[in-house]
Amino acid sequence: MTNTLDPDLLRRMHAYWRAANYLTVGQIYLRDNPMLEEPLTREHIKHRLLGHWGTTTGLNFVYTHLNRAIVERDLNMIYVMGPGHGGPGPVAHTYLEGSYTEIYPRIDRSKAGMRELFRQFSWPYGIPSHVAPETPGSIHEGGELGYSLSHAYGAAFDNPELIVACVVGDGEAETGALATSWHSNKFLNPVRDGAVLPILHLNGFKIANPTVLARIEPDELRDLMRGYGYEPHFVEGHEPEAMHQAFAAALDTCLDEIRRIQKDAREESAENARRPRWPMIVFRSPKGWTGPKEVDGKPVEGTWRAHQVPLSNFDSDEHVRQLEEWMKSYDAHELFDEEGRFREEYASLAPKGQRRMGMNPHANGGLLLKPLHMPHFAPFAEDVKAPGDHKAEATRVLGRFLREVMRQNMRTFRVFGPDETASNRLEAIYEASPKTWLAEYQGVDVDLAPDGRVMEMLSEHQCQGWLEGYLLTGRHGFFSCYEAFIHIIDSMFNQHAKWLKTTRKMDWRPPVASLNYLLSSHVWHQDHNGFSHQDPGFIDHVANKKSEIVRIYLPPDANCLLSVADHCLRSRHYVNVIIAGKQPDWQWLDMEAAIRHCTAGAGIWEWAGRGGDDPEVVMACAGDAPTVEVLAAVMLLREYVPDLRIRVVNVVDLMSLETPDEHPHGMDDDQFDDLFTRDKPVVFAFHGYPGIVHKLTYRRHNHDNFHVRGYKEEGTTTTALDMMVLNNMDRFQLALDVINRVPRLAGEREKAEQRYWADIQRHKLYVSEHGQDLPEVRDWQWQPEA
Amino acid sequence: MTNTLDPDLLRRMHAYWRAANYLTVGQIYLRDNPMLEEPLTREHIKHRLLGHWGTTTGLNFVYTHLNRAIVERDLNMIYVMGPGHGGPGPVAHTYLEGSYTEIYPRIDRSKAGMRELFRQFSWPYGIPSHVAPETPGSIHEGGELGYSLSHAYGAAFDNPELIVACVVGDGEAETGALATSWHSNKFLNPVRDGAVLPILHLNGFKIANPTVLARIEPDELRDLMRGYGYEPHFVEGHEPEAMHQAFAAALDTCLDEIRRIQKDAREESAENARRPRWPMIVFRSPKGWTGPKEVDGKPVEGTWRAHQVPLSNFDSDEHVRQLEEWMKSYDAHELFDEEGRFREEYASLAPKGQRRMGMNPHANGGLLLKPLHMPHFAPFAEDVKAPGDHKAEATRVLGRFLREVMRQNMRTFRVFGPDETASNRLEAIYEASPKTWLAEYQGVDVDLAPDGRVMEMLSEHQCQGWLEGYLLTGRHGFFSCYEAFIHIIDSMFNQHAKWLKTTRKMDWRPPVASLNYLLSSHVWHQDHNGFSHQDPGFIDHVANKKSEIVRIYLPPDANCLLSVADHCLRSRHYVNVIIAGKQPDWQWLDMEAAIRHCTAGAGIWEWAGRGGDDPEVVMACAGDAPTVEVLAAVMLLREYVPDLRIRVVNVVDLMSLETPDEHPHGMDDDQFDDLFTRDKPVVFAFHGYPGIVHKLTYRRHNHDNFHVRGYKEEGTTTTALDMMVLNNMDRFQLALDVINRVPRLAGEREKAEQRYWADIQRHKLYVSEHGQDLPEVRDWQWQPEA
Repeated sequence: MTNTLDPDLLRRMHAYWRAANYLTVGQIYLRDNPMLEEPLTREHIKHRLLGHWGTTTGLNFVYTHLNRAIVERDLNMIYVMGPGHGGPGPVAHTYLEGSYTEIYPRIDRSKAGMRELFRQFSWPYGIPSHVAPETPGSIHEGGELGYSLSHAYGAAFDNPELIVACVVGDGEAETGALATSWHSNKFLNPVRDGAVLPILHLNGFKIANPTVLARIEPDELRDLMRGYGYEPHFVEGHEPEAMHQAFAAALDTCLDEIRRIQKDAREESAENARRPRWPMIVFRSPKGWTGPKEVDGKPVEGTWRAHQVPLSNFDSDEHVRQLEEWMKSYDAHELFDEEGRFREEYASLAPKGQRRMGMNPHANGGLLLKPLHMPHFAPFAEDVKAPGDHKAEATRVLGRFLREVMRQNMRTFRVFGPDETASNRLEAIYEASPKTWLAEYQGVDVDLAPDGRVMEMLSEHQCQGWLEGYLLTGRHGFFSCYEAFIHIIDSMFNQHAKWLKTTRKMDWRPPVASLNYLLSSHVWHQDHNGFSHQDPGFIDHVANKKSEIVRIYLPPDANCLLSVADHCLRSRHYVNVIIAGKQPDWQWLDMEAAIRHCTAGAGIWEWAGRGGDDPEVVMACAGDAPTVEVLAAVMLLREYVPDLRIRVVNVVDLMSLETPDEHPHGMDDDQFDDLFTRDKPVVFAFHGYPGIVHKLTYRRHNHDNFHVRGYKEEGTTTTALDMMVLNNMDRFQLALDVINRVPRLAGEREKAEQRYWADIQRHKLYVSEHGQDLPEVRDWQWQPEA
Repeated sequence: MTNTLDPDLLRRMHAYWRAANYLTVGQIYLRDNPMLEEPLTREHIKHRLLGHWGTTTGLNFVYTHLNRAIVERDLNMIYVMGPGHGGPGPVAHTYLEGSYTEIYPRIDRSKAGMRELFRQFSWPYGIPSHVAPETPGSIHEGGELGYSLSHAYGAAFDNPELIVACVVGDGEAETGALATSWHSNKFLNPVRDGAVLPILHLNGFKIANPTVLARIEPDELRDLMRGYGYEPHFVEGHEPEAMHQAFAAALDTCLDEIRRIQKDAREESAENARRPRWPMIVFRSPKGWTGPKEVDGKPVEGTWRAHQVPLSNFDSDEHVRQLEEWMKSYDAHELFDEEGRFREEYASLAPKGQRRMGMNPHANGGLLLKPLHMPHFAPFAEDVKAPGDHKAEATRVLGRFLREVMRQNMRTFRVFGPDETASNRLEAIYEASPKTWLAEYQGVDVDLAPDGRVMEMLSEHQCQGWLEGYLLTGRHGFFSCYEAFIHIIDSMFNQHAKWLKTTRKMDWRPPVASLNYLLSSHVWHQDHNGFSHQDPGFIDHVANKKSEIVRIYLPPDANCLLSVADHCLRSRHYVNVIIAGKQPDWQWLDMEAAIRHCTAGAGIWEWAGRGGDDPEVVMACAGDAPTVEVLAAVMLLREYVPDLRIRVVNVVDLMSLETPDEHPHGMDDDQFDDLFTRDKPVVFAFHGYPGIVHKLTYRRHNHDNFHVRGYKEEGTTTTALDMMVLNNMDRFQLALDVINRVPRLAGEREKAEQRYWADIQRHKLYVSEHGQDLPEVRDWQWQPEA
């Protein structure tokens, strides 16, 4: 046994840990009698027992040890707990260190406060059982497993003085996201960034199963961690004294090594940094450590039976007695004085002020958030002299603007993408900063550097997790992704949106920067990669979340994209989804008109239609590709029905279609009726699945006249127009839709139908023969009316 | 250099590989002049160049070598290609081996056939550029990366004679799903299951970046693979002859080792099997191997520039010349005769008949699919003598039925779940078969065995990937998951649904068994785990897919769940989503009524309502928890408005709400009107987000009268009823909704509103004080009308 801790410190740390464990059991079980001053009875025990005991004492143990290190070394440290189910742990610890009471004065350091602390846990209108946003010091909920390590790395980026201790549970370690997130060390620069100290906590069991990493050969586990690029330090056992000494020694070794790595690296500049072998700890301790060894004759400590509530059914007096004995094993009266105050002898072990992990501002990023320095976007605008006078690649234009944003914010802004930044044509960003890379270099590499600020690993999970960690610690970011594959992080988005929703109501957590998605290489531009790359359903997924949190934008051209992106980068505490194509496509609005249009969210494009206040039909569009089709259909209709009065409406801000009581961007009914009329047919070409337009508009006066075209899962490898044809959103179809819906054109329908089929057949034959669209389609250009 | 291959075999294999490479280049580039009989000109080249050259020659190389092994060892082998973008590779190989022509006789083995082969590739109405369902021998598309290895393991389960060769790309290897799927070896039984031979293909680059695994230290890579439990064999280089010998030697070593492992293991029984260290190959070859070394002065072979089309812009004569030279480097005339037929000297290397990887029936599972032996479910039914006479745990009842399904199908049925089978109360299944586990055992373990058939790893990706592989090779399965976390595999579901949609139209791929999800621990039963565990949005996600593929069921009680599960297990080629709670809850229908109700999809519960054909209001419900609330509201309303004529409609089959032209299960308008009336208010309590009910019903006559309650992202740790209250779907709210909507009750509204607020306040106070619901709520039971 090593002797890192002198006997007195060991005694006091052990007491500190016992105190946290006592408070953990108390939270799970007690509604009253917090100090066990009376004999425990059923009446003191909650009716409904919730919480996860199994992981918590291990989390508490680590917290106690990190405290020692923070004090001894004056560390700037936060603590990410992968096993977020262990919520009572950090609640107990932040209470012991005083953070909790500072934030929630009601839960003061007294017997009454302790009673309230216990009672509120997993209690209606109290606090959730997980490491929820309500928990001071947390940037990580941990209810859904897999993201602790990528959050930890995200927090460490650009925070050179920060050390992020990250416990990875051995259950969580089985998830895909976690399994790849170990590789984050190839993207962390020891000069410019802080450090992550992973602590793989093997307590051996999940809900009902052993864990893989706890049950492979020790050599395999060592190989695996070394293969991931870490040097593992093993702490294993169950006897507290030996474990305290072993953990303290391992932690000192790791922190010394981190200091050495950083010192060595920082003698060079960030651009010359190389990847070191970072240390990590493998911490093997019993599940439900210090809890009941046996219940009803069955082993509990060290088994999956300790996962949640190891002791329940208090109709049994024996169980009441066992709980009392268990709680008394921590000897609360030695730990807390008669008033219920944690004794100074132990309390003094905690760090002070913002060094306390519950009060570290990095775990409450809104405190640190500074606005981005924003260049004006106008200089990057496309010069549109008339609608449709030229083509441009919208995302390429955006890339130039983002390059300037990057240049002006070289410590607080990063761009993330799974190997797709260039594919999405944002590569101008590399002129400001290349991609981060701390693995081997070869001569052919370009745009890679150890101190690059563009984060690219082929894992949407990793990009999302890094970005969340970066945002929640008070910085800004931008994530570009292929539209179809953003579904890979649907569930991570859910959790982040839930975090935002919850913290929005918490005064002590100021807003953080918005999470900005650019979805490009979208469904209508994946005619080359085919069906597997076509899915616009992230819109639907996002639209289910709280309206105060989510925003969805479909800019029709480059200038609108600039305006929207500028708005999103300045915004706070939202998830902004921007969908924009990367292919050369027609440009419609000059910069001024684009700003006006995007600010309104939706508007009539007078220049495209005819008939002013008295249209016979509304042709609406949302999305860049549908906008082109609608305008092409308008030109066809000009030919087919020369006197038809068409109004063209373009929608940028999808949520503007909702009513204001459902979404703050929603138009009121009058505005809506002004755009879409109260009684005229509306043919709507929509970027995504058509159903959502109905979902957003079903309460509107004119809804029964809405006819929505969109993606209906008819995709393959084909031409751009044929993608439209397959999904019945092509110009021929839209023109036919109009004729079929304008009452006075009833007589035209048969002819129009014939013309439609002839056009489609001509299209199919040509495409089949030439492998590309009809010349008239390729050469199509908007013509203003003569 | 080893000499595994004699010189003549080496020469012929090299020629075979060259032929595949030639056909690959031809597919990407040529629309005509397939044998280069004329000098190549622009006119022979496609206008639009699509396809992924970079990975394909490596895939071709492996295919050639696997062929040798199949022939020499008479192997039953399929080939999963993670880099599915390399579509032209397997198309070329299956053409060379004859499989392609057997399936697509139009593409025959002639010059004309070769021309057609080239032309159809990535051509409208031709074939996609990826390893799509159209590709013979594939069970894996690979457009979205990450799932190759879990698909491969899924294919190997219960196929003891099968070897699944699986190329993992080094791009794909960075994804989360792939990173954890290496651990599948802890779930594969060498006696009962087949083998997987992973081939990690390091070609060094992604679209625009180097790959992590190609750029870590060789020792780290070895450690990583050993840490995952494999013994890696390294094949590295670029000189073809040496590479052929090295690969052949490594492959022989691996296959010998697989045979040895299986032989040794199979001297014991499956229940005594232990986990061996399986072999794998690390294959490091240049990206775009054999392609242009340089284009326009920039290096291409061995760089990311070779990822897609290494040579483009054929306005340049130089490029035309370079393409011709490149193609001629394969010497097509030595490989194909004057008719364009692959010369027998080489063609004879291919395996014959079903040993060809393009014709192996395991890669076309519908050919092998046999119906499950289905026990009748009636013996497992809950004995419901009257609606609401007792409570039961629906999923526990289902577990007993699944136990029997398992018992009767011990080679063709598996159950999958991320550590949640027991938590979802399906543990009766363990009586038929425990969980598979081939890692270390400890004394406290229960329900684990090397030959268990319940697959539990804490990775939804892994469960989904294994199950897809298992289904696509002709077996049956059932996946149970927490409802909220099924979003983790949203994108995998997308890809599987796309596969099903595409293959549905392919005669040569008969239908496979449906993918059955049971989503339990659902949003209304996560009042203990709180907000992070609450999300019913998978319904919306699934509903966007093709109606011919997806089914969504919300059985209100255990007997309905049995009926629905039986139906789903018998079905083919669908994704069935079943949502059912695990908590003790009220039972409504006896078995006979349940069958009738589920068969109809939706129906009037006469026993619950009043007023027969002339209701004043319809109270509809879909989902178990909303059903209870609606019935509780009915009882309240009986008291509040004794003469109110309420009709209760319960919906099991969500898609029955759609119109028949949108979904085959859709009710026609008359049926819909018969249930929901044409003009009466409908108060609808829905399990999920309310918007989808509007989306499904907006065309119905009575839609404007639909008032839908559902989950609106208001969740936390609280009581069951309070979850309803937070989301305004509680009984008090529903009763108020009715009173507010029935015209003749206008005079009652003020009083009702006051009563509602009093009830809510009483509820909040009680819950806050006692931590559980009001006694009247806990003790509530349905009472038929006196």
